Amino acid sequence: MDNNNKPLILISNDDGYNYNGIQTLIKVARTLGDVFVVAPAVHQSGKSSSITFINPVRTIPVASEPGYTAYLATGTPADCVKLALSQLMADRMPDVVLAGINHGYNSGLNTLYSGTMACVFEGILHGVPSVAFSFGDYSINADTSVCEPIVKHVTERVLKGGLPKDVCLNVNIPKMDGDFKGMKVTTGDMGRWVNEWEHRTDPSGRDYYWLTGDFEIADKDEGLSDYYWLQRGYVTVTPTHVDQTDFASMAAISDLLL
Amino acid sequence: MDNNNKPLILISNDDGYNYNGIQTLIKVARTLGDVFVVAPAVHQSGKSSSITFINPVRTIPVASEPGYTAYLATGTPADCVKLALSQLMADRMPDVVLAGINHGYNSGLNTLYSGTMACVFEGILHGVPSVAFSFGDYSINADTSVCEPIVKHVTERVLKGGLPKDVCLNVNIPKMDGDFKGMKVTTGDMGRWVNEWEHRTDPSGRDYYWLTGDFEIADKDEGLSDYYWLQRGYVTVTPTHVDQTDFASMAAISDLLL
Repeated sequence: MDNNNKPLILISNDDGYNYNGIQTLIKVARTLGDVFVVAPAVHQSGKSSSITFINPVRTIPVASEPGYTAYLATGTPADCVKLALSQLMADRMPDVVLAGINHGYNSGLNTLYSGTMACVFEGILHGVPSVAFSFGDYSINADTSVCEPIVKHVTERVLKGGLPKDVCLNVNIPKMDGDFKGMKVTTGDMGRWVNEWEHRTDPSGRDYYWLTGDFEIADKDEGLSDYYWLQRGYVTVTPTHVDQTDFASMAAISDLLL
Repeated sequence: MDNNNKPLILISNDDGYNYNGIQTLIKVARTLGDVFVVAPAVHQSGKSSSITFINPVRTIPVASEPGYTAYLATGTPADCVKLALSQLMADRMPDVVLAGINHGYNSGLNTLYSGTMACVFEGILHGVPSVAFSFGDYSINADTSVCEPIVKHVTERVLKGGLPKDVCLNVNIPKMDGDFKGMKVTTGDMGRWVNEWEHRTDPSGRDYYWLTGDFEIADKDEGLSDYYWLQRGYVTVTPTHVDQTDFASMAAISDLLL
């Protein structure tokens, strides 16, 4: 990696290196600075912040040229970013971590299960401004090129202005026939999954279950949440942090237990 | 399961059914009500809220007697609780979800990676009061019987008084030579992991990396955090929620991006 004045951008995802989403991120990022990629060698959707310690993690180099380095890693999205920031990039920390573009939304509650969000959580835990991008087209072959101007705008602003300490951005981009209506800063809609399993019986008569389901929007913050604005054609940006302490209920819990 | 007046208690964990920790939970819970267990068939530490949808999940019945039912499930901790609450217990929802007892702390930042915490997140997402227990002895054969009075006290109080909506409890129990000093309601210490990887070379000369590391306590809430009180011999109870929206920075992010 050149030690020049260009920004250094780390990119990872959960789908893997050959998806259109990460290739769109790489394309845009290379117009803005030097790029370093560590992507999972095997598809890792739904892995949340899972980490690998029962087995070791290996890296597979896939690109090494001036301004562009890429590895695959045999681990989870969180492993990829940890490995980049603590080992592979130890000589020079990146100026920003970008994750995605996920094929499918990571809005609201779904951030809990998201490997894409795990990447940006590791970014902020290592002190690097971090942005996750997700697109409302779930197909393997989703055309993510429509996201390019959004990625460019947000990345440029974050490179220039930074982000508040310990806060990452969760950007969701709707799939539209026409132009985006605009961009909104939103809350995450903590809805719920219902009809979560499909129960089947195998040819030997044994039960098995497929995880599936329907997402019910809570919309308790009507006019504020990501789902509300995505449905209306807006790009949403949800500031997100790691700490899940419920400060508001500490006194009530003391009354209950102590 | 009897449809009687006893409380119904769902138990899961991430270590698996044959660990002392979950057996201690089961032992105490059976003195308080009817018990239903769905535990991972394979050890699932560090799986966070990972979910399984590339493969189906199977269940293996291991106990079915009046007041006590137990299954193994070939999935993650989150899968186990989802499967219990959406399929296996569909006739009667439990009054409380208990997770653990984890062999090792789930304090502070480590909740991010915890399969034990994933169990209680699923509990509250399904509207059931939920409590995770973790013990400061990391060994496979940890003697978790010392935790029994804590499990009994907290579970009885939660069964009687309930918990605030969308809030679960993260209980950490120190390994002590003598008696616990008491119990404190705390915040989660968002420290950081350093020296995260051990880099080795295999006999063929290829690189591989083991995830390891040292946890640096942040202690920004001195006198409030779980680490602070665990080190002083107290059982800690951190009220915890799922929503990670950073409400405080929404205006700053609007200024940056819009």
